[in-house]
Amino acid sequence: MTSPAAPPPVLPLAEALIACPSVTPAAGLVFDCLEGQLAPLGFAVHRFTAGEAPDGPVENLFAIRPGPDGSRHFAFAGHVDVVPPGDGWASAPFAPEVRGDLLYGRGAVDMKGSIAAMVAAAAAVPPDAGTMSFVITGDEEGPARFGTVALIDHMREAGAIPDLCLVGEPTSVNRLGDMMKVGRRGSVNIWLEVEGKEGHVAYPHLADNPITRLVHMLAELKAMPLDSGNAWFQPSNLEITDLAVGNPATNVIPSRATARLSIRFNDEHTGQALADRVIAIAERHGGSARPVISGEAFITPPGAFSDLIAAAVEAETGLVPEASTTGGTSDARFLKNLCPVIEFGLTNATMHKRDEAVAIADLDALARIYARIATAALAG
Amino acid sequence: MTSPAAPPPVLPLAEALIACPSVTPAAGLVFDCLEGQLAPLGFAVHRFTAGEAPDGPVENLFAIRPGPDGSRHFAFAGHVDVVPPGDGWASAPFAPEVRGDLLYGRGAVDMKGSIAAMVAAAAAVPPDAGTMSFVITGDEEGPARFGTVALIDHMREAGAIPDLCLVGEPTSVNRLGDMMKVGRRGSVNIWLEVEGKEGHVAYPHLADNPITRLVHMLAELKAMPLDSGNAWFQPSNLEITDLAVGNPATNVIPSRATARLSIRFNDEHTGQALADRVIAIAERHGGSARPVISGEAFITPPGAFSDLIAAAVEAETGLVPEASTTGGTSDARFLKNLCPVIEFGLTNATMHKRDEAVAIADLDALARIYARIATAALAG
Ligand SMILES: [Zn+2]
Ligand SMILES: [Zn+2]
Repeated sequence: MTSPAAPPPVLPLAEALIACPSVTPAAGLVFDCLEGQLAPLGFAVHRFTAGEAPDGPVENLFAIRPGPDGSRHFAFAGHVDVVPPGDGWASAPFAPEVRGDLLYGRGAVDMKGSIAAMVAAAAAVPPDAGTMSFVITGDEEGPARFGTVALIDHMREAGAIPDLCLVGEPTSVNRLGDMMKVGRRGSVNIWLEVEGKEGHVAYPHLADNPITRLVHMLAELKAMPLDSGNAWFQPSNLEITDLAVGNPATNVIPSRATARLSIRFNDEHTGQALADRVIAIAERHGGSARPVISGEAFITPPGAFSDLIAAAVEAETGLVPEASTTGGTSDARFLKNLCPVIEFGLTNATMHKRDEAVAIADLDALARIYARIATAALAG
Repeated sequence: MTSPAAPPPVLPLAEALIACPSVTPAAGLVFDCLEGQLAPLGFAVHRFTAGEAPDGPVENLFAIRPGPDGSRHFAFAGHVDVVPPGDGWASAPFAPEVRGDLLYGRGAVDMKGSIAAMVAAAAAVPPDAGTMSFVITGDEEGPARFGTVALIDHMREAGAIPDLCLVGEPTSVNRLGDMMKVGRRGSVNIWLEVEGKEGHVAYPHLADNPITRLVHMLAELKAMPLDSGNAWFQPSNLEITDLAVGNPATNVIPSRATARLSIRFNDEHTGQALADRVIAIAERHGGSARPVISGEAFITPPGAFSDLIAAAVEAETGLVPEASTTGGTSDARFLKNLCPVIEFGLTNATMHKRDEAVAIADLDALARIYARIATAALAG
């Protein structure tokens, strides 16, 4: 494989994106900025909004630069929305600022820096290498109902199905290149409720304490065997994330008790199968369970695509990235329905935190890695 | 034993007491009224306030009518404070109203009706039968720190220790005379807390979920063997009365979880011993426990005093009262340190409820029962 041309400097592209405030749901300015970067590279940019309140409307951008007829199609995917900056920043979060070797600003690593690197990579890959596209949403950090999901609908309707897709989430942990994500666990949140009968603690036989049943239900749920993990996934895990009764009276048995679970599960389960097991246990204890499945587990089985990414990373950093499936969910959970998808991006130490920052050298290294990945992916 | 003289009608005495609003802490008017009823019967009335904010000051009344030198001393005990009436009464709660056979008003059964019956009974017992006293507080339904506790201090200082004491709580269940209380269970409330380490549900190994430990702690506490009850007490019982976490984020493991227990326990335990067992279990699960003991269990062992009461009740009602230790706490928990104490009074169906009411016939029957009890108690 030939090395691609050197990408242009990423810093000004990243600064321009960070300077557009874009707390979820992002709209307008930040998309104008990205469109302004992609159009000169020969991309046809399609912007649209999807969905209605409360989880919409959401602005999305699909940009495509067609290669020669019959060529392969490689997609970069990501988001331009960011989580709220919070207080206490050393510099204004939406005023990108270079201090020493670092660029500070909300979205520096998650993931405007990555998107800027994608743009720089696209500039380095000649159009006749194949079809390239950008799949960019303004709602990844939010409900995500009308973001990447709507983009996938649009791509299916347009017949623009990529052969491979790379998501630019900040997957590196200690050094750029030490980790990529070849899959993600699924996620289901479950609201539990037990109704009892209120009464006085001195007369428990006249009451039915819902807390007793909830505690036994939760102990059984926490002991529920899930799995021991497998070659690609750590064991599935259940956490109880909330309890609520709200009874101020020390001598009263309350009428209702609630709890909430979060299960992160690997590819040995589906969200619905887990939800059904929880519902059965809840009902056996006289309670009820309401599941909301956020995403199913998926794996892009290690092979040509992950090898290609590893080779690109190693060529630029000397590191062979670990193929991991740890961590939270990302929009890769949707894109995996379209084509093989792997995530690789910047170091995540400061993501979602105050004083989010990226090494300027990492931005340029990432652009070179992305250019290598795109070139190899289009070469097939 | 001779029958005592017929007591005067109780209704006007009860109406007068009910007409004095006296939500906890009671003070002033209702004590003026009671003093006005007792003074003509030859009682020396001592009124005093005890305690400071937030649980005081509390007004109390101790009235004594000395018998001949060396005679026995019998005490009636009770409270003139009432719980708040709440809304929705058919007639004004502090405007006593007779409708049909019933007298309506807050305190009709708990326990201004009983106190009126005590006054009528005292009128029927000749002073030379022995020493009689009234031990009346204005704070039984409240914190009860400076009520009967302070009265007992006063009686000890005055050297006025009764041989026997009858508390006028509404102990009857379906019909006047079906139940007396010869003891009460103790009560301890315990606040539990587990501190953990906040984190993301996707990275549970970096967090420490306090809810997991709280659930296991509560399951163990609920399974903690207490006792099987005994001849006089039902089994001790532990209820979990509250849970709280307050975590709105579905993907966050919270840092803190709390719960609250109430244990009602019989005379096989002390509050402190139970608290120590709970603290040990809580600490074994990495949590902490803060107990507040409301009262210890006590029993006035069945014998002469309960036989005397049963005989008086049977003579007037035909019923042999069950000697029970069920229900919540009362000021008998304090008085038991002074002398043998038993509780007997009106039917409790409407106590603490809207449209609290007592049968007028029950008021007069109770006065006759009380007069028989006092007469027999003073006869020794
Ligand atoms: Zn992201
Ligand atoms: Zn009472």
